[in-house]
Amino acid sequence: MSTLNGLIVGASGYTGAELAAYLHRHPHMNITGLTVSAQSADAGKLLSDLHPQLKGIVDLPLLPMSDVAAMAKDVDVVFLATAHEVSHDLAPQFLQMGCVVFDLSGAYRVNQASFYQDYYGFTHQHADWLDKAVYGLAEWRAEDIKQAQLVAVPGCYPTASQLALKPLIDAGLLDLNQWPVINAVSGVSGAGRKASMTTSFCEVSLQPYGIFTHRHQPEIATHLGTPVIFTPHLGNFPRGILATITCKLTAGVKAEQIDAAYQQAYAGKPLVRIYDKGVPAIKNVAGTPFCDIGFALQGEHLIIVSAEDNLLKGAAAQAVQCMNIRFGFNETQSLL
Amino acid sequence: MSTLNGLIVGASGYTGAELAAYLHRHPHMNITGLTVSAQSADAGKLLSDLHPQLKGIVDLPLLPMSDVAAMAKDVDVVFLATAHEVSHDLAPQFLQMGCVVFDLSGAYRVNQASFYQDYYGFTHQHADWLDKAVYGLAEWRAEDIKQAQLVAVPGCYPTASQLALKPLIDAGLLDLNQWPVINAVSGVSGAGRKASMTTSFCEVSLQPYGIFTHRHQPEIATHLGTPVIFTPHLGNFPRGILATITCKLTAGVKAEQIDAAYQQAYAGKPLVRIYDKGVPAIKNVAGTPFCDIGFALQGEHLIIVSAEDNLLKGAAAQAVQCMNIRFGFNETQSLL
Amino acid sequence: MSTLNGLIVGASGYTGAELAAYLHRHPHMNITGLTVSAQSADAGKLLSDLHPQLKGIVDLPLLPMSDVAAMAKDVDVVFLATAHEVSHDLAPQFLQMGCVVFDLSGAYRVNQASFYQDYYGFTHQHADWLDKAVYGLAEWRAEDIKQAQLVAVPGCYPTASQLALKPLIDAGLLDLNQWPVINAVSGVSGAGRKASMTTSFCEVSLQPYGIFTHRHQPEIATHLGTPVIFTPHLGNFPRGILATITCKLTAGVKAEQIDAAYQQAYAGKPLVRIYDKGVPAIKNVAGTPFCDIGFALQGEHLIIVSAEDNLLKGAAAQAVQCMNIRFGFNETQSLL
Amino acid sequence: MSTLNGLIVGASGYTGAELAAYLHRHPHMNITGLTVSAQSADAGKLLSDLHPQLKGIVDLPLLPMSDVAAMAKDVDVVFLATAHEVSHDLAPQFLQMGCVVFDLSGAYRVNQASFYQDYYGFTHQHADWLDKAVYGLAEWRAEDIKQAQLVAVPGCYPTASQLALKPLIDAGLLDLNQWPVINAVSGVSGAGRKASMTTSFCEVSLQPYGIFTHRHQPEIATHLGTPVIFTPHLGNFPRGILATITCKLTAGVKAEQIDAAYQQAYAGKPLVRIYDKGVPAIKNVAGTPFCDIGFALQGEHLIIVSAEDNLLKGAAAQAVQCMNIRFGFNETQSLL
Repeated sequence: MSTLNGLIVGASGYTGAELAAYLHRHPHMNITGLTVSAQSADAGKLLSDLHPQLKGIVDLPLLPMSDVAAMAKDVDVVFLATAHEVSHDLAPQFLQMGCVVFDLSGAYRVNQASFYQDYYGFTHQHADWLDKAVYGLAEWRAEDIKQAQLVAVPGCYPTASQLALKPLIDAGLLDLNQWPVINAVSGVSGAGRKASMTTSFCEVSLQPYGIFTHRHQPEIATHLGTPVIFTPHLGNFPRGILATITCKLTAGVKAEQIDAAYQQAYAGKPLVRIYDKGVPAIKNVAGTPFCDIGFALQGEHLIIVSAEDNLLKGAAAQAVQCMNIRFGFNETQSLL
Repeated sequence: MSTLNGLIVGASGYTGAELAAYLHRHPHMNITGLTVSAQSADAGKLLSDLHPQLKGIVDLPLLPMSDVAAMAKDVDVVFLATAHEVSHDLAPQFLQMGCVVFDLSGAYRVNQASFYQDYYGFTHQHADWLDKAVYGLAEWRAEDIKQAQLVAVPGCYPTASQLALKPLIDAGLLDLNQWPVINAVSGVSGAGRKASMTTSFCEVSLQPYGIFTHRHQPEIATHLGTPVIFTPHLGNFPRGILATITCKLTAGVKAEQIDAAYQQAYAGKPLVRIYDKGVPAIKNVAGTPFCDIGFALQGEHLIIVSAEDNLLKGAAAQAVQCMNIRFGFNETQSLL
Repeated sequence: MSTLNGLIVGASGYTGAELAAYLHRHPHMNITGLTVSAQSADAGKLLSDLHPQLKGIVDLPLLPMSDVAAMAKDVDVVFLATAHEVSHDLAPQFLQMGCVVFDLSGAYRVNQASFYQDYYGFTHQHADWLDKAVYGLAEWRAEDIKQAQLVAVPGCYPTASQLALKPLIDAGLLDLNQWPVINAVSGVSGAGRKASMTTSFCEVSLQPYGIFTHRHQPEIATHLGTPVIFTPHLGNFPRGILATITCKLTAGVKAEQIDAAYQQAYAGKPLVRIYDKGVPAIKNVAGTPFCDIGFALQGEHLIIVSAEDNLLKGAAAQAVQCMNIRFGFNETQSLL
Repeated sequence: MSTLNGLIVGASGYTGAELAAYLHRHPHMNITGLTVSAQSADAGKLLSDLHPQLKGIVDLPLLPMSDVAAMAKDVDVVFLATAHEVSHDLAPQFLQMGCVVFDLSGAYRVNQASFYQDYYGFTHQHADWLDKAVYGLAEWRAEDIKQAQLVAVPGCYPTASQLALKPLIDAGLLDLNQWPVINAVSGVSGAGRKASMTTSFCEVSLQPYGIFTHRHQPEIATHLGTPVIFTPHLGNFPRGILATITCKLTAGVKAEQIDAAYQQAYAGKPLVRIYDKGVPAIKNVAGTPFCDIGFALQGEHLIIVSAEDNLLKGAAAQAVQCMNIRFGFNETQSLL
């Protein structure tokens, strides 16, 4: 199997570093470059200067982003770990150069231009690509991903939430008149690598934020096809997400049916682990590419607990998983 | 105002230490003794040997529990920071000696003997005292507390949950056909001071537990008079509780009505802080005797966030608050 | 005893908040104002907006700093919790208005103008005040503090280090030909309340910094009168300092002599706690105004462990302790 | 290259789980069994029940230890992740069966039977094997390891300390009349996987322990051939070790000589990373098989900072590294 050339745009952040580590150990990938914005103070540094755990492993320099034509030369695959607006602008340029693009931002996740006006505060200019983009929820969209030129990789909260809810919704096991209540807690790395008071060590403490206003709420609702109540929290740990989801069951649904729906949905899907008993903790998934799902029910009430590493199954690992699917590699190549 | 003699039974735990610190600085209290069970390896040690932050402040010895008649001599007030079964047995003995008892266990919190069979696994033998016990949710039961000989002080989850929900339920602002969903995360001190794998440093990680089976669910439901879905989590921090509560509003209810209900319920109640905007974080309350409450709503959906220090407003501070009310001291004496 | 009017300049930080809490509960103090720099985005906010644990306790506004003459009117006592250069400029202005000034910065801690050139990067303009300033290591300088108009309150590392070493050096128990090795770990609050990559939650990890170059090394050495090797570390906890100090004993010195030196130095000094056995942990002192000291020796080698809350005995509590001493209040008034 | 059969004895702990994960992904290893003591409550459980991050990866059962002859059948390699006394007894039995044994306990680390009497409290019965055992400090003993039947893999503190000091001592760069001062902080996993008050979440806090009495002090001193002062601390993080080492330089030694000594010692040694500038933090090495070393000097004083993951380079990774060396595999096979 031939080797692909890959470029990571926006490589200085936590997700970029994880991507670089995965690609570095991928037998069919050759990293042709890591870039940061031309203005970044990190330009010229080594990735391992910023992320010293990679010293001696990925010591590549962070190149200042220049014109796309030059950067894309001989590149097969581009990962965009950039801000939404930046991805919005760059993706079409790389696509026109023939690259396959895996965008980890929100810029191409919802196929409605108005969505971006409402929730991201910018006017989407690329309805054509929005149309062609495939939502990279890997366990559910493998067939589309195989054909895609642009994959919009879903992020942390939507991945954990949808992997937990979609099998049950599709199987008609939930009474959706009562909206699922998703309470999710994310580690601080979810806020990105930057100086801010919000993520300052002494300020971080378990607290909800963005109540009723977080843009992942409509993303989840759109892709599930049903409204949800989504309450994100910032927790005092570096990485991981735990979503506790409370739902109403369709009358008469039993535990076996829930379990069967999960088994059926995720048979042969190595990165989703369904629990026979008990529910996951953050530590079960931190540092792993898995999304773990457990549940309990009583009467018509169901609690699902879904956990993942926000930087891995919620970002870099899912992007590489999509790439593996797209190019016919083993789905978990370099992830396990 | 005269000085009362106080005894703390079960003083070696985290709650016992907080109680001792409060009573020590209380101008109208004299600590006559701190006890531990006669079998405890801590008997004979100083409280400050176990809790070194109290060195030089409360250096009293932990006495092995002996017969109640001897221990209760000249004692006006007894705090039971003991296991449920121990409180169940001891409370009547101290009461018969004429002491006023503040029980921090669950043994007298619900006035139904069957409750203990179902949720605590023992047969309650003291229906008479169960009948007379006053539930020490201090902001709501002050008049009863003033007359009580036995106050069953509610613990961490029930206090945070009820203080948040009760004003709205009483005002008819919630559509209770849809059960309130209480997702709560507690610091590890809530599990008590003892060696266990569950609370071992490397094992602790954000995780739900006791889903649908935690005994605080029926306690909350009984006192609120309406069912709730309660999902407790263990979090990776030593102290504090944060409850995120999702409810359905009665049709047409506006934010102003929610706010008015809280203002009315807690006017003149110094230990409940209602937020004008935003919601509390754990750090806002850790180390304080407050319960902080904030909320947000959208359409018919309401999210309430309630936070407290599990060892203080969720245990020791509320016990002292009840004592202050009972004996006519300033409600926040020694707490602020 | 009359009530003093107090002003806190630079009140928005962690130390400022602790100072405000102490002064608020001080029976002989009236807070006349809390200020921040005129440019600060925090001007106009309440202190409790920034430090929500103080909501309902200290809800005073943060006033933009204006001219000193206006701010100092009717003010008896000023606490400067400001940057070194700011304190350098402001202290003389307040002193000229007749205020007693407690400066928590480094601007007046060492009575050598050249020190500031070498270690702080600015030229000291106020040699006269530098001359008159009393170093507020409270247990050691009480007689001078009582007379002082300007007290330069030592900070976190120097307090923990000097309280541990000074009794032994003064008693001639150490062989100083071998420099004492001070390894100290500070909580993140020691870096102040501001957004920075260094104190970003995901970046904090146990690590030494400022090796051989930290300005506290010459401060400690100057006041002890002997060189030391001082290696500070940033630790992954919000508050507290632990210093592990390795020294060589004068030939023949026994444990009893060490103990006697400490007992003699700190008899009647309520904020230094000497351990009979064992050594302190950070949790023993976090949230308390104490400095705890324990030691162990073997042959000619001595290990001293000194711990304090960097924001309290290492800042705000020591400043209030100095004020209590200066004005004849009980030394621990409002601190315990 | 043929595949070896490997057995992990004492597989339920944190080190055992890391070993199992490494061996599982090793292309030349086949795990024939994971064992726990016959009395363990974990016998019969899956490794992934105890360490859920391994679910779907290593789901092997934990077998109760039975007689060695049966367990050793067809086994080429045995890892003993057992208590010192257990390793002491088991190692000879496996050795007599012809297995190559990597012992992660202290039972064969020092080639003096009296050492065990003095520091481990038991009489060593196997002087012959003590004699033949090779100390598995991998970067230094590769030639011996290649021939060894019994490798005594050094643990966390000794590895970090010796890798930092040995090149400088061997090159004569240190004035050892002044004993090197090793201050080291370990994550809590270093204390093993068990319920205890010491490692209880709410009790853990930065604190020295075992001052002058820790058995790693004589182990380090013996292997370095020079006395040291070693002060271990327990830190509030799950994994990692940071050692800050203060030494006196031989007169006239310059930074370049230090650097040259490290470069020479560790050229071609991929698991030791020497820093050009700056010093490591715990996060640089947690989850990696590296030991990172940086230093700073001033005059005759040298500070070395050495960091590693206590469970990896300080235990499991070094054991696998030794195995790779022993059997001629790539030294970092399955580690990177």
